[in-house]
Amino acid sequence: MAQKIFAFSIRKDEEPYVKEWANEHPDIDVDYTDKLLTPETAALAKGADGVVVYQQLDYTPDTLQALANEGITKMSLRNVGVDNIDMDKAKELGFEITNVPVYSPNAIAEHAAIQTARILRQTKVMDEKIAKGDLRWAPTIGHEVRDQVIGVVGTGHIGRVYMQIMEGYGAKVIAYDPFENPELKAKGYYVDNLDDLYRQATVISLHVPATKENYHMINADSIAKMRDGVTLVNCSRGALVDTDAVIKALDSGKIFGFVMDTYENEVGIFNANWEGKDFPDARLNDLIHRPNVLVTPHTAFYTTHAVRNMVIKAFDNNIELVKGEKADTPVKVG
Amino acid sequence: MAQKIFAFSIRKDEEPYVKEWANEHPDIDVDYTDKLLTPETAALAKGADGVVVYQQLDYTPDTLQALANEGITKMSLRNVGVDNIDMDKAKELGFEITNVPVYSPNAIAEHAAIQTARILRQTKVMDEKIAKGDLRWAPTIGHEVRDQVIGVVGTGHIGRVYMQIMEGYGAKVIAYDPFENPELKAKGYYVDNLDDLYRQATVISLHVPATKENYHMINADSIAKMRDGVTLVNCSRGALVDTDAVIKALDSGKIFGFVMDTYENEVGIFNANWEGKDFPDARLNDLIHRPNVLVTPHTAFYTTHAVRNMVIKAFDNNIELVKGEKADTPVKVG
Repeated sequence: MAQKIFAFSIRKDEEPYVKEWANEHPDIDVDYTDKLLTPETAALAKGADGVVVYQQLDYTPDTLQALANEGITKMSLRNVGVDNIDMDKAKELGFEITNVPVYSPNAIAEHAAIQTARILRQTKVMDEKIAKGDLRWAPTIGHEVRDQVIGVVGTGHIGRVYMQIMEGYGAKVIAYDPFENPELKAKGYYVDNLDDLYRQATVISLHVPATKENYHMINADSIAKMRDGVTLVNCSRGALVDTDAVIKALDSGKIFGFVMDTYENEVGIFNANWEGKDFPDARLNDLIHRPNVLVTPHTAFYTTHAVRNMVIKAFDNNIELVKGEKADTPVKVG
Repeated sequence: MAQKIFAFSIRKDEEPYVKEWANEHPDIDVDYTDKLLTPETAALAKGADGVVVYQQLDYTPDTLQALANEGITKMSLRNVGVDNIDMDKAKELGFEITNVPVYSPNAIAEHAAIQTARILRQTKVMDEKIAKGDLRWAPTIGHEVRDQVIGVVGTGHIGRVYMQIMEGYGAKVIAYDPFENPELKAKGYYVDNLDDLYRQATVISLHVPATKENYHMINADSIAKMRDGVTLVNCSRGALVDTDAVIKALDSGKIFGFVMDTYENEVGIFNANWEGKDFPDARLNDLIHRPNVLVTPHTAFYTTHAVRNMVIKAFDNNIELVKGEKADTPVKVG
């Protein structure tokens, strides 16, 4: 009998890639639902050897038990995060779990680059003028990317792609990372410390994970060290930025523009629909409607390329588990 | 006595560059007004040896005569176009005239690149969702620039910068130009003909001057040769595009998105304020409000870099005329 993989909570934009994987694996039975995985829906996977999943909803002990009751203990996440899995129960039931640690660094780097260029070009002001019939160009003048000194904080996958894009525009790029990439170092990108970067950059873009040490690294003190009229880009983690300090600097004109794809209080606010309801965060609402601030609700990752990778890699992982092979990106269970 | 240059119709965004030039030429008297040059205002230039100008308003025989009455016949345009100068009168009065043929190819190439990426990313849809409080990401999924085949029509200054930016994103770039650039040819960018470009490209960007031969080169026939879901970018000349044919292809989904910084009927519509008035072109109004169309009113050129070049080069030209030297970019008078 053919081996079978069942996928939960498949969105419309994921379907083509599920079908693509199924077509390339005619020997494997593939089925899926748009429903989330719960103790009630687990039975939909009946007869499957493994499941492919992705949801913000918790994977509770009951949910895991319901899967195990169907004889299913091989579970492949389409995303990276495993915080919502009850690992004690998973271990008790003998679960094997995989995730997808990297979807598409370019998705995030491209988003950061596009939003950077939009701030410099004042497209939000211009678009709003055009929408109401004001087709005059002055005084909404653009600044060219090539005239900028781009300061990149963090030179991992995403930071490096962002640097490459900005160089394509002809900008000067400098970077800081406590862990220097030897190739970038040889090419002379690194400044010695963050203060040097703040002093030189006209655009500062953050591409670092959030740690205890860098909590609110962008604050009144660090902003004071920056050039007047600096543009700030945060497509990394909300906790990196003291939002109140940025707002003060936007009000004073110290900061020319601000790109935020993440927000320190985003949990429970982003990826929800507040239309016709009381918006839950007045500060965020104010930022959304400023002409020189571009807010996106943690969507930088969200491209067809990334979603394809999430689906295809999760299925690849799951078939490895099902066949008893070593999966590419296993998660430590327990 | 110091030589003097007087500048007309200086906008707020031009002022810093007038002052920059004046500071770098302390031996020259520099003065200016925000008023347009007319028979009445010409006297403001009294005592000047040359004038720096830029306006859509005609330079009529009366206007030129009024300048000549002040002994001024050395006139430097901050822009390229000279259609609005009465050349017969200018010749009769012995005018010497210069223009600024190139302001900033990057201004236009960057704009085209930013708008291209925005269409692919669906930022207009996402921005409108966010503005009304809908912070859900799905189904507004982005397409990465790196996954595109960018077809560039015209490989002059602007086209080449656009190519370089798109390569920075990691896209595959192909090009067509009847006059091939040897360096680009050696690198293998060129396809043999437009049909090949239409067949391969997922994004097509026009960077050619308007001629009799290429009038409506983008029409129902050429669109039919393109890939389904193509993105079309016109930051060159409105006359290149049969707007009705594009609208049909937008309606059918053949064209995924359309960027237009120029419009075949733009004269008298762009660079005016229609707020609170009847918008003069229903077709353009429809395009402006489509989620997958980005209209800008011929603003691609409008950056600080370009404006600085327009001002500085015009003053440089004018002082050359005033000193009786050969100007860099003279205009044929008469």
